[in-house]
Amino acid sequence: MAALDDLLKHHRTTEALGQVMGRLGWDQETMMPEGAAEQRGEEMAALESVLHNRRTDPRVGEWLAGAVASSDAEKAQVREIARSHARAVKVPGELAAELARLTSVSQGIWAKARAADDVAAFLPTLKQVVALRREEAAAIADGGDPYDALLQDYEPGTTAGEISDLFDRMRPRLVALRDRLAGATMPAPLTGFFPEAAQMDLSREVARTFGYDFNNGRLDLAVHPFSSGSGADVRITTRVDEGEPFGCLYSTIHEVGHATYEQNIAPEFRLTALGQGVSMGVHESQSRIYENQLARSAGFTQYLHGRMAEHFGPLSASADDMERVINRVETGYIRTEADEVHYNLHIMLRFDLERQLFGGALEVEDLEEAWNARFLKDFGIAVDHPSNGVLQDVHWSVGLFGYFPTYALGNVYAGCLHAALRRDLPDLDASLAAGEPAPALEWLRERLQRHGGLRPPRETIRHATGAEISEAPLLDYLDAKYGALFGV
Amino acid sequence: MAALDDLLKHHRTTEALGQVMGRLGWDQETMMPEGAAEQRGEEMAALESVLHNRRTDPRVGEWLAGAVASSDAEKAQVREIARSHARAVKVPGELAAELARLTSVSQGIWAKARAADDVAAFLPTLKQVVALRREEAAAIADGGDPYDALLQDYEPGTTAGEISDLFDRMRPRLVALRDRLAGATMPAPLTGFFPEAAQMDLSREVARTFGYDFNNGRLDLAVHPFSSGSGADVRITTRVDEGEPFGCLYSTIHEVGHATYEQNIAPEFRLTALGQGVSMGVHESQSRIYENQLARSAGFTQYLHGRMAEHFGPLSASADDMERVINRVETGYIRTEADEVHYNLHIMLRFDLERQLFGGALEVEDLEEAWNARFLKDFGIAVDHPSNGVLQDVHWSVGLFGYFPTYALGNVYAGCLHAALRRDLPDLDASLAAGEPAPALEWLRERLQRHGGLRPPRETIRHATGAEISEAPLLDYLDAKYGALFGV
Repeated sequence: MAALDDLLKHHRTTEALGQVMGRLGWDQETMMPEGAAEQRGEEMAALESVLHNRRTDPRVGEWLAGAVASSDAEKAQVREIARSHARAVKVPGELAAELARLTSVSQGIWAKARAADDVAAFLPTLKQVVALRREEAAAIADGGDPYDALLQDYEPGTTAGEISDLFDRMRPRLVALRDRLAGATMPAPLTGFFPEAAQMDLSREVARTFGYDFNNGRLDLAVHPFSSGSGADVRITTRVDEGEPFGCLYSTIHEVGHATYEQNIAPEFRLTALGQGVSMGVHESQSRIYENQLARSAGFTQYLHGRMAEHFGPLSASADDMERVINRVETGYIRTEADEVHYNLHIMLRFDLERQLFGGALEVEDLEEAWNARFLKDFGIAVDHPSNGVLQDVHWSVGLFGYFPTYALGNVYAGCLHAALRRDLPDLDASLAAGEPAPALEWLRERLQRHGGLRPPRETIRHATGAEISEAPLLDYLDAKYGALFGV
Repeated sequence: MAALDDLLKHHRTTEALGQVMGRLGWDQETMMPEGAAEQRGEEMAALESVLHNRRTDPRVGEWLAGAVASSDAEKAQVREIARSHARAVKVPGELAAELARLTSVSQGIWAKARAADDVAAFLPTLKQVVALRREEAAAIADGGDPYDALLQDYEPGTTAGEISDLFDRMRPRLVALRDRLAGATMPAPLTGFFPEAAQMDLSREVARTFGYDFNNGRLDLAVHPFSSGSGADVRITTRVDEGEPFGCLYSTIHEVGHATYEQNIAPEFRLTALGQGVSMGVHESQSRIYENQLARSAGFTQYLHGRMAEHFGPLSASADDMERVINRVETGYIRTEADEVHYNLHIMLRFDLERQLFGGALEVEDLEEAWNARFLKDFGIAVDHPSNGVLQDVHWSVGLFGYFPTYALGNVYAGCLHAALRRDLPDLDASLAAGEPAPALEWLRERLQRHGGLRPPRETIRHATGAEISEAPLLDYLDAKYGALFGV
């Protein structure tokens, strides 16, 4: 008993310090003055050193060896701490700290390079980031596939081979649907002026509708929307374009999906190894089901039309057209703006480039060219600017290699959850049309969110749905939804 | 050499983590959602544990013993680290962490109690805070005066006896001036509506005028204005009352004094033991000289009249009356709103009550009664509400006992600096009237601010002024200024 108690006590402090690290990240993206970037890098490196020392503390190994776990929750605590410990001991402390410092500073360098459409200005930094992550991945992989090692940070238990097989199964049906839709007539996008204050008001209202608790969170602006923090302090961000209201609104709903997952984890798991979403894939399943299957549904888009008219005045689209306007399908450069049909094709591109980068088949210098060639092949249009191509996403600048595939996994998981949800809640359309997603949120909370890290990622999804995981429900849903909407 | 290098390297990480702690404090007062208070307490306790472990690390003692310092800066580094180490090793780690947790949480409890004018709601928490600080002070004092031990945290090298003697010398002249002014006619306060946005715009403008660098800082709202952070990230806060513009403006200038001290410390001292203002008294000398001797001067108030008319439209006071309006003398309950004549009398009350609390002559249960009796005696008016009395200040809720005297020391130091400044800058009035305090700011930066912790507090002041420290310049300045302004 003593070993387990000591282990959990030690780990609780580590989790609390991990939350502090998260808060620094939030601050960096929302509040930090520009001139503080370099110092912040050093502050984050210092905190990462502390975290690394705690995770690699030899006593953790001894406590893990001596820990006797009785309940499922205790076993899960030990499992998660053991995983974190096993990873950490393979990584030299200096490397961990230097990665924290570099990826804190590199984000600002990337942001400036993207704004200037200047790949060359970012390349030296990206080379450093890739070099350090390669070194780290090799240390963790210990002779195995370094890309598999990266994946473990975001989706424990998943391999690159599995992802590759999944994408091979998904691609033909997605491409077929995309090609059918290419011949369909799309409605015009919404036009008008949508003031920032009104967009933020509506976003706050809709965040509440989707269960976000502002007593334990807040909504701010950021260049790239994100959710941050666990337990009692889970913050979200969104972005505003006064000519286009859906980016702000659906970014908010997406982040509310992430954030309510964190807010709804059982309070007894707070500041423990089970007190956070269990994987990035499961996390993304929540953000995507909130954003897409719920908030882009026929019922909710109808309801939203009324709320938008209330906040912005008369709209250029009718209530009847609203679902089609919100679900327009269009080939575009930007992943975060992609419709549900194109979205996973963007992910497949990044996955393949990342595997080449970490398998030795591609160097950073050649990344832009590889991106552009692949984009033309997959999407049929040539990249016009680096900010529409290789510079578009923040992820690589902060070392998030192996992260992108979890977005597609999240979509697959969301498809599974949505099928089960529809099975259990036959009146969901009526609720959504009334602006009341609560029955679906309650279902997700009880079946999935409150359990936090209790079960490994895929078991978490299977427990929630009572079914095996498959890409079929997602692809069936997409075929049905887009086929009906646009008559293809 | 090696010992010194190791010591400085270790300490640099400690300083970086100290900055992280400061950022958490800033966040708590400006951004944190209310429901996060308890978790934040645990996060801060975790970080305090880390800091305490680093400060008490036995290797620090060994490095200090073996360190060979050559330059003045190296000697100062060793001096400051030794001081921090000697203090930390006397305090049990559990106590340090529990104090961090409690004083993070207690602030919210105090704020609610103050808003409700409910002393009883705050007493249990205050008793806990005082009990822990008594325990800590006893551990540090090691048989000596526990209040002296508290003072060392804020004004190293100063004793309660010295403060007491200083106050005994200051009181008669302050009371005499106050009594003379009681018969004088005061101008009416400014009336009108001063929109928040315009107050914040003007505050940002005046902050820049006083040298604040927004590239390494930001200005936000807080219940109690403060400055936070060192080096490249020094943030300030202010408050807004739309019926009264000077609170916002002069709070900003006050905090700019604190913040520019931090921003102007030599870059090579950043994230070292010399990279912060050397004491709270010296810090307060900067905030007070900016706020009072510079910004409440005849010249600057004239200039300000024009800037305020530009931001707010026509004012209810003429430019000629502006200095008298801004320097109105009035007996009031609230320290932070007190004029320069009354201000130190408020400090003396707190100092005596604190000494009694930590000397065993007063218990927390009797604090309100003692406050009220003393306030009536010193100020001639009876406290009407606890929020105008014992609940008014945030300090005690967060354990800041021994801090108040540094406000009076800061005024005394500011008096010394101002006399030297006037000696060296005969044209200062003309500069201030033109809205250009730059010559004074430059003098302060070169003489004092850039040196950070290089010299102990009193030596810092003496180095800047070239004269011995005395309360006489402050009292002479007050007599001359208020005598001339109100004809007494």
